[in-house]
Amino acid sequence: MIRPVEWRGDILRLLDQTRLPLSERFIETRDYRVVAEAIRTLAVRGAPLIGVVAAYGVALAARHCGTDDPAEFRSKVGDAIGLLGSTRPTAVNLFWSLRRMSAVLSRPLPVPSLVKALEEEAFSIHREDEDMCRRIGEFGSELVPPNAAVITHCNTGFLATGGEGTAQSVISAAFRQGKKISVFADETRPLLQGSRLTAWELHDIGVNVTLMTDSTAGWMMASRKIDLVIVGADCIAANGDTANKIGTYSLAVLAGHHHVPFYVAAPGSTIDSSVGSGSEIPIEERNPDEVTHCGFVRVAPPGVPVVSPAFDVTPAALITAFITDSGILRPPYDFSLWKEGRPA
Amino acid sequence: MIRPVEWRGDILRLLDQTRLPLSERFIETRDYRVVAEAIRTLAVRGAPLIGVVAAYGVALAARHCGTDDPAEFRSKVGDAIGLLGSTRPTAVNLFWSLRRMSAVLSRPLPVPSLVKALEEEAFSIHREDEDMCRRIGEFGSELVPPNAAVITHCNTGFLATGGEGTAQSVISAAFRQGKKISVFADETRPLLQGSRLTAWELHDIGVNVTLMTDSTAGWMMASRKIDLVIVGADCIAANGDTANKIGTYSLAVLAGHHHVPFYVAAPGSTIDSSVGSGSEIPIEERNPDEVTHCGFVRVAPPGVPVVSPAFDVTPAALITAFITDSGILRPPYDFSLWKEGRPA
Repeated sequence: MIRPVEWRGDILRLLDQTRLPLSERFIETRDYRVVAEAIRTLAVRGAPLIGVVAAYGVALAARHCGTDDPAEFRSKVGDAIGLLGSTRPTAVNLFWSLRRMSAVLSRPLPVPSLVKALEEEAFSIHREDEDMCRRIGEFGSELVPPNAAVITHCNTGFLATGGEGTAQSVISAAFRQGKKISVFADETRPLLQGSRLTAWELHDIGVNVTLMTDSTAGWMMASRKIDLVIVGADCIAANGDTANKIGTYSLAVLAGHHHVPFYVAAPGSTIDSSVGSGSEIPIEERNPDEVTHCGFVRVAPPGVPVVSPAFDVTPAALITAFITDSGILRPPYDFSLWKEGRPA
Repeated sequence: MIRPVEWRGDILRLLDQTRLPLSERFIETRDYRVVAEAIRTLAVRGAPLIGVVAAYGVALAARHCGTDDPAEFRSKVGDAIGLLGSTRPTAVNLFWSLRRMSAVLSRPLPVPSLVKALEEEAFSIHREDEDMCRRIGEFGSELVPPNAAVITHCNTGFLATGGEGTAQSVISAAFRQGKKISVFADETRPLLQGSRLTAWELHDIGVNVTLMTDSTAGWMMASRKIDLVIVGADCIAANGDTANKIGTYSLAVLAGHHHVPFYVAAPGSTIDSSVGSGSEIPIEERNPDEVTHCGFVRVAPPGVPVVSPAFDVTPAALITAFITDSGILRPPYDFSLWKEGRPA
């Protein structure tokens, strides 16, 4: 398995995901500014992975700071935290991760101990993310029957997290248990995360994966046996309504129509108990160019307007179960008392 | 208005629709094999237009046959009919059109008269198609309320027929009647007929059209008022089950879930009363490259298999009404006694 991030003593090695799936190029650097640039240009993407990589970026800045003076050290590493925090203005995991690194930086320790402590904290953030993925995979794999045909949407795998992924961690775990599963991956327009990333990841680890256009999923459910649909989540409201990549809602309606179980796999940190229901989740509108162009080639005539919501909201009633790092949750859903990603 | 097909004496001129909307290139040929290749590669597409162009292809083969011996002539033109008939396995208009040409070919006439009769028959097929489009538009526009928001899929306009289109003829007629309608056009992966053709055509005639990815349609039905969905058809079975561009079935399920009327607009010639139900309709599998590539750029990793059915089958129960050139038909549907595209 290719690792999207690897700490090699005093060098950070990052997979350049903008080159996938055609080329597997790595960025190796001692410079936190290169790490910040990798996040900004989407060479590194996926909210949990961004958090992990930013933490290593701070550890890298600490390692190569070149001073033993604690004040100068804190100032320089503080600059690195500032730069890394400016790369993706809406990335919640990024800020959460950098706050943890800042807390370590303020400990009253000599510089060599701070360097070591920052490195340890980055490892912890990485390990916790790996554990989260592993738990989701273990819990979720119980829901996957042998020889299952599975539909998935967008990218939820090891390229997006510090571990094996969310929805895809379930697929990987079932596969490792010897269940001969077949995955049908939606290409996921407009940005084709399914084609570019999910198909590549599953193929890489040996899972039987077949690519299809998003509008083929319904017909697959009608014309052959699909055992389950599994997707990730960007935000889960207190009542279980779930925002995820555009197209998820259609998949859920189609799954319901065909009596196919529809599962959402996500860490508890995706649950926002302060959001009552899906109608309160703001839906980001994407750049029209993503629809009017394929690659850099225009495919639609100039002047035609586009509607391109990044996400849609699947009502809780269409979700068979949530697979979280705290276990499998069945309806009725009530996350209103969850705190810090865990049941109260 | 650009003509997708034009008979110029002894040359057939075809608009190469694979180049739209960025380039308006034409194929001019005396060779029916070039016509067959144009149909196979989708330079010419749209079920009714395929029927018209195939008829001209036969007329072209007759014109340039190079023999006065009736037996040899019938054999050579028969070969052309065979080749043209092998291009698209689901295209009922193609077979219907070629049967008409075959019937003319079997008339006991000298070769020069056969050449002329075949040309006349191709003209008739083209003219009848224009009339058919006009009638579908007139009947169907009654179903479109003023200010309607309409979802459509693929391309059903003047690029797909010998006239103004099928589903799109309904939109055009309603628009000409002064109804201020808004059309949301699915981009229609993999070949993007919605982006490339439908958005181009509707924008060209002044209809308010907005482009979206295929997986956005369900969310549009859930999040704002959509008044109707209207699509074309490639093949309609005796019981009303309808094969159309992949994604149509999903739209029909989604429309049903949201109580949005789902209309199929098609000429009677699309009805194949010899096909009992949708399960008997063969589904053509498209070239995987259409999914793994965008334009000429590979977007999926090499070695990943693709499932890419050209069509899906929408069960009659999900279809609110058929809009045909013989009028609007409501359930229960029974086309078993239809002949030559008309009720018995």
